[in-house]
Amino acid sequence: MNKYPKDLSNLIHYLKKLPGVGKKTAERFAFQIISWQEREQQRFSELLSRVHETIVPCSVCGCLMQQPPCAFCGDASRNPHTICIVASPKDVFAFEETRAYEGLYHVLGGLLSPIDGIGPEKLQIHRLSERVKNLPVQEMVLAFDSTIEGDATALYLKKIFQSDSMKISRLALGLPMGSSLDYIDESTLSRAFFGRQAF
Amino acid sequence: MNKYPKDLSNLIHYLKKLPGVGKKTAERFAFQIISWQEREQQRFSELLSRVHETIVPCSVCGCLMQQPPCAFCGDASRNPHTICIVASPKDVFAFEETRAYEGLYHVLGGLLSPIDGIGPEKLQIHRLSERVKNLPVQEMVLAFDSTIEGDATALYLKKIFQSDSMKISRLALGLPMGSSLDYIDESTLSRAFFGRQAF
Repeated sequence: MNKYPKDLSNLIHYLKKLPGVGKKTAERFAFQIISWQEREQQRFSELLSRVHETIVPCSVCGCLMQQPPCAFCGDASRNPHTICIVASPKDVFAFEETRAYEGLYHVLGGLLSPIDGIGPEKLQIHRLSERVKNLPVQEMVLAFDSTIEGDATALYLKKIFQSDSMKISRLALGLPMGSSLDYIDESTLSRAFFGRQAF
Repeated sequence: MNKYPKDLSNLIHYLKKLPGVGKKTAERFAFQIISWQEREQQRFSELLSRVHETIVPCSVCGCLMQQPPCAFCGDASRNPHTICIVASPKDVFAFEETRAYEGLYHVLGGLLSPIDGIGPEKLQIHRLSERVKNLPVQEMVLAFDSTIEGDATALYLKKIFQSDSMKISRLALGLPMGSSLDYIDESTLSRAFFGRQAF
């Protein structure tokens, strides 16, 4: 016999697409969902059917918004002298949570990765150039993953945008908060040493 | 500002209801879902809107089915002399995967747990009594979790159903396959010792 009823298999199939979710976890999720009340399932379903319309990237900065104007582009209180460049819209929310940054954002939509066929033309770099021309930006903060792709993208942007009137900075590399030296890998430790800060 | 667009918060809210999913994971899942193609989102949505109709428990044994007859009750090749009692429909699929069992199933819909207000009247025990009367059952296999609730439910069913014509058995307690004695807790080890099998 076929193991699961067809729609249960379908449900597991979709849940397995979520990041880090394997067969066993997807099964657990699916059984949980079918145990929900019908009303909850319907609301979840309606939500999914409209997210492609209600959660859209801003056409200027690429941040996600429910409706125009975008919460960042439309907010006159944000500092237009600094622009933080990130790979994905999720990173924007991570920064907002810190409450440490009040400037503008620009979402590239990915990182350079020739091996995956992602060249500069696939990222929102052209749009960034246009924005930078029209804004009084003095500093560009490159906030990418500390990976080969992140490094490559940062170097590429530095080459294009660095000038006397534009300071380019990157996120600091060093020890995560609350970490113990016992558990830190060598390369993080050496970067933390070279980037040591006056105390 | 509100951290996420409203529907993104809603999506995270629903995903957080999945077992073992906290805020961070739900956020990762939500960002993954909104990156899916619209067609995929729509299909997932349609699936969710119909699962309450297409995945239903069999009115006799409680196993999940897409449509009547149930794959177990309607299958004459299954051995009607043995009935395996499980807490949830998920357990049935776990047994089917072993291909070690060819008898019938009965899903109780939970385990006795007075502290959660789950008494015998909330489980499908009455229906089990009726089935047992009408079936040539000779052995009842109690396949519950090895927990207080599982033990309580097993003892309760034993008291009701054990008779000269009805053998009651439970799943063996012992070492999991591939386990090392170094990592086995004392109570598992002592149960494995007392339940040692002729070799």
